[in-house]
Amino acid sequence: MSQQVARVSLHDVQRPVAGELELVVGELRRVIAADFPIVSEVNDHLLQMKGKLFRPTLLLLSNKAAGCNDERAVTLAAIVELIHLATLVHDDSVDHSVLRRGLPTINALFSHQIAVIMGDYLYSRAIIELVRFDDHEALRVLARVTNEMTVGEMRQLEAHDKLAYGEGEYDALIRAKTASLLSGACEVGALAAPADYRLALARFGMLLGMAFQITDDLLDYTEPEAVTGKPSGLDLREHKVTLPLIVALAGRTVVAQLMDTAEPGDDLVAEIIRLVEAAGGLETARQRALDLAQQAETELDVLPSSPARDALQGSIAYAVERRS
Amino acid sequence: MSQQVARVSLHDVQRPVAGELELVVGELRRVIAADFPIVSEVNDHLLQMKGKLFRPTLLLLSNKAAGCNDERAVTLAAIVELIHLATLVHDDSVDHSVLRRGLPTINALFSHQIAVIMGDYLYSRAIIELVRFDDHEALRVLARVTNEMTVGEMRQLEAHDKLAYGEGEYDALIRAKTASLLSGACEVGALAAPADYRLALARFGMLLGMAFQITDDLLDYTEPEAVTGKPSGLDLREHKVTLPLIVALAGRTVVAQLMDTAEPGDDLVAEIIRLVEAAGGLETARQRALDLAQQAETELDVLPSSPARDALQGSIAYAVERRS
Repeated sequence: MSQQVARVSLHDVQRPVAGELELVVGELRRVIAADFPIVSEVNDHLLQMKGKLFRPTLLLLSNKAAGCNDERAVTLAAIVELIHLATLVHDDSVDHSVLRRGLPTINALFSHQIAVIMGDYLYSRAIIELVRFDDHEALRVLARVTNEMTVGEMRQLEAHDKLAYGEGEYDALIRAKTASLLSGACEVGALAAPADYRLALARFGMLLGMAFQITDDLLDYTEPEAVTGKPSGLDLREHKVTLPLIVALAGRTVVAQLMDTAEPGDDLVAEIIRLVEAAGGLETARQRALDLAQQAETELDVLPSSPARDALQGSIAYAVERRS
Repeated sequence: MSQQVARVSLHDVQRPVAGELELVVGELRRVIAADFPIVSEVNDHLLQMKGKLFRPTLLLLSNKAAGCNDERAVTLAAIVELIHLATLVHDDSVDHSVLRRGLPTINALFSHQIAVIMGDYLYSRAIIELVRFDDHEALRVLARVTNEMTVGEMRQLEAHDKLAYGEGEYDALIRAKTASLLSGACEVGALAAPADYRLALARFGMLLGMAFQITDDLLDYTEPEAVTGKPSGLDLREHKVTLPLIVALAGRTVVAQLMDTAEPGDDLVAEIIRLVEAAGGLETARQRALDLAQQAETELDVLPSSPARDALQGSIAYAVERRS
């Protein structure tokens, strides 16, 4: 992949597995079904809120690219999305977020209590469904990943108000918080493949996930609310330290001023966005995402040529070039 | 068992498995160990907070009484306690409780955010440990139980402010919230036993758990704070409807008045406790706990005579006679 990547739409990436992706939503609905009224109501809301299915896409593409044709792939893809949903419900509750994918969060629409309980409900449903396969491997990978994500959330709490937060800590954070599940999705898709395919796809997913999260953190600096659906500078408003800021920090007193201001105003936030840009924070973060993207692409070399492999390659461009 | 049971101390109940119980705490420590500072701090606090190990006791006694001598029993007992701990951490967070077993709760000592994340951390550690055994059965039972407990928590939310709450709903609540894990502990202890032992112990645990929870709800009416460690009438203060109140309700307007009062005063709470007692609510709840206890005891008939079976019998008396 050249450093200049052509824009690839998620639709393009999903084409080789479009049929399976349609089945994933039905599987998800089956797995979370409940005969208790509040749970059903929350489920209906979550299914409306359904996102881009990026993790199921990666699982299904990995499965095809590794030549597995695992008949459990659609169910496993639904389970990976379910684990993602469970973590979103708890994250929104922990962060007191009110909107997710343009809809009210569970904590906002129902209550904080219901959000905590529903996250547990969804996660335990995912485990029940995984246990139904008489094969420990998917469970082993996804239990480890889920545990890593909780440590990632703890690291996220530490990435607040902390001017000394470094690149090493940021890397550990985005690996645990985001990249581990993308890696797990790719690995679980290739469980039936030879070990070299499986391990290459696990590494691919980890690199892709890091590039994906760096890109996400960059969007907070570069894109207006109309494009991303969340206010520009939101991370700064919430005192979150991400890669562009880490690069730009170098002891600037205005950043210390931001951290000391409970609710920074528009002017202060705008000034720091300009400062970060001038200090090369955005450029460095972009370059790091592209480096990771290139490493991710190299991991695909071991796989035979196929439309699914091409789509995984396309998913890299999607991850680093997306604007929302 | 006669309707008048001799007082049995938990110490007596635990005697046949005292050696194993000492190992359980070490196993628990091993399973939750983390190399991330906040997680370690929370773990240390949770290990101090360690309760009476009633669920591990039941698992170990079931294992012995069913003649299994499963070498995994100590680890499984630690996992059952870990699942219990994870649910306590989330329950305290959902309820905004500040004290648990005489120590500050995780949400009070650290933060609400850390409590939500730590519950997820502990539960995913339990799953990782269960996956290490190449045997799906323990995982199948405990994943189902955990999911039932989340539905129980949802039912608990509905048991507030609801004068129409009936005995059937209360039964479903205490089965899901409390009895399912006690049943799971007994069943997992007897996984290696013949099916009739295993199923009898699962039913035993369910009946015992219901009697245990009814007794707990009774203590809220009958025992002062000095004995139970929580204020008498706390459930009423929090608008929780339990069996004694359900029995006593019969359309009394003073109960409606309680439900309409956001923070009921001592006089109002004391009046309703007297009312519930006069209406036979306490006696009916006591009788129901004793009936369940007798049914639980009958389930033990299938097992051969042993000190462990005697201790399981003793655990029934402990469950219904305890004062805190």
